[in-house]
Amino acid sequence: MPVSRHIARGNIHQATEHKGVLYIGGITPDDASLDMYGQARQLFAKLAGILDELGSSPDHVLLVTCFLCDMSKKAEMNRAWREVFPPEIAPARVCPGIVAIEEGVLLEISVIAAKADQ
Amino acid sequence: MPVSRHIARGNIHQATEHKGVLYIGGITPDDASLDMYGQARQLFAKLAGILDELGSSPDHVLLVTCFLCDMSKKAEMNRAWREVFPPEIAPARVCPGIVAIEEGVLLEISVIAAKADQ
Amino acid sequence: MPVSRHIARGNIHQATEHKGVLYIGGITPDDASLDMYGQARQLFAKLAGILDELGSSPDHVLLVTCFLCDMSKKAEMNRAWREVFPPEIAPARVCPGIVAIEEGVLLEISVIAAKADQ
Repeated sequence: MPVSRHIARGNIHQATEHKGVLYIGGITPDDASLDMYGQARQLFAKLAGILDELGSSPDHVLLVTCFLCDMSKKAEMNRAWREVFPPEIAPARVCPGIVAIEEGVLLEISVIAAKADQ
Repeated sequence: MPVSRHIARGNIHQATEHKGVLYIGGITPDDASLDMYGQARQLFAKLAGILDELGSSPDHVLLVTCFLCDMSKKAEMNRAWREVFPPEIAPARVCPGIVAIEEGVLLEISVIAAKADQ
Repeated sequence: MPVSRHIARGNIHQATEHKGVLYIGGITPDDASLDMYGQARQLFAKLAGILDELGSSPDHVLLVTCFLCDMSKKAEMNRAWREVFPPEIAPARVCPGIVAIEEGVLLEISVIAAKADQ
C-alpha cells in the first residue's frame, strides 16, 4: 500500500495518507497576533479545510495532540474546539503545555484521522 | 470503515476506534496530590481498565507518548510503568518533559493500541 | 493481527508493528555533547537504520513528532532533517518546544511509518 503525501510546505507535507488513515501536522494559525481563541479558531478552521480537501471530516478524526504554549488559556482553546468538534463527535485528545512553537504562536496540533470512505 | 467513539468526557472522548486500532487520550490520575509514582500507578491502572473494556490489553499497546511535568521523577514513573508493561511486552514510547498539564497533575499520556482480536 | 515488538531497550521497545504500520520511539542521539545539528544527524541516521532494518524507509514515514529542547536551534535540526527527508518525500511533522529530555539531549522523536511492502 503506497504512502501519499499532500500539501507540500517546505520541509514537510501537511498530510500523509496510508490505508485510509491521514496523518496531519504542521498546521499553525496565520495570525500570531490573535489571542488563544482567535488562533485556535484559525487553526481548527484550517484543519477542517484540510480534512475536507482530503476526503475526511471532523467526525472522522481519531486523535488530536494539541500543544499549548499557555495552559491558562485552555478554556479559550476549548471554546474554539467545540465549534469544530461538538461533544458527540469529539475525538480522543491530549493537551500538553509546552514551552515554545514559533514566535507568538500559541498552539500547534498533530492529528490522525480516518478518510470518510474507508 | 466507520469511526467509533468510547467514553465521553466533556470536550473529548477518551478513545476512538478505527480498523482495529484504538486511539486513547485524556486520561489523568484521579488524585493530583499523589507523588509521581502514585499518579503514574493510577494513570496506568486506568489505561489498563480502558484497554480491557475496549477489547485490548497492555500487550497490544503500540505507542505511548508520556508527557512528564517533572523529568527528575522519571524513574518513579518507570516503576509504575513496569507494573503494567513488563519489558517483554513493553511498547514503543517517547517521554517529553513539558511545562504543565492541569494543576498538580504530573503526567498525561496518549496511546495507540491494537484491539486484541484484530 | 498480532502485534510485533522490535529492538528491546529496557523499559521499552524501540518499535512495534501492527497491520503494516511501525510505531517508533525511544531514539536519542548517542553523543549528547554534540550541538543540535550533530545530535539531529545522529538521531535521524539511527531512525533511517531502524526503518531499513524493519522493512521501511524514509519515504514511508507518515508522521514525526520532533520534540526540541531548544527551539532557537530549529534551523539546525531542519538541516539534518533534509538530509534524510528531502522535500519530495518529507512526512507530516509537528515540532513542539519542550523543557527536558535527558541530560544534554536536545531532541527526541516519535515516528509512525508504513512498511515498504504493505
